[in-house]
Amino acid sequence: MVKLIALYKHPEDKEAFNEHYFNTHAPITAKIPGLRKMEVTKILGSPMGGEGEYYLMCEMYYDSHKALQAAMRTDEGKASGKDVMSFAGDIITLMIGEEIEE
Amino acid sequence: MVKLIALYKHPEDKEAFNEHYFNTHAPITAKIPGLRKMEVTKILGSPMGGEGEYYLMCEMYYDSHKALQAAMRTDEGKASGKDVMSFAGDIITLMIGEEIEE
Repeated sequence: MVKLIALYKHPEDKEAFNEHYFNTHAPITAKIPGLRKMEVTKILGSPMGGEGEYYLMCEMYYDSHKALQAAMRTDEGKASGKDVMSFAGDIITLMIGEEIEE
Repeated sequence: MVKLIALYKHPEDKEAFNEHYFNTHAPITAKIPGLRKMEVTKILGSPMGGEGEYYLMCEMYYDSHKALQAAMRTDEGKASGKDVMSFAGDIITLMIGEEIEE
């Protein structure tokens, strides 16, 4: 599968971030056509100690590159992208990843 | 579930990295007791274009924090940690993450 990975650095105001993320952003994103699975991970820190650079990761799975590209062009995909940039544009890293089958 | 996330920046020598990663490191890691699932993702770049900072991600799933901590203390866990530091210590970011159930 192919996934869009969103990696968020620690927000300045975690309470406001969580409020918007879980009550507004995640529900918008969950509606994107073609989305097969969405896995949200709270980053707890480094195994060597310390909280590290990142706060949250969201992985959005699609059947293929074509499906991911098409999803990003839908109204729901655009709404999700616009929303995320409005509250987390300065702390987000977006990556496209391809699962390696072994 | 709880997962150990290994995020690798682009290695200088991708061929040597891949050779070691897939033929030596991944098989050592796959033997760690308690490991439930291992998902390796090739990062293709940013959806906005550009190859981005990261090259590869590996997610190692465990039943709980306790299971992850115990796994890292086994001989196999230590061997995997030692091996990764030998070829990728300068490009790896390790994070412990907890899946958020929605």
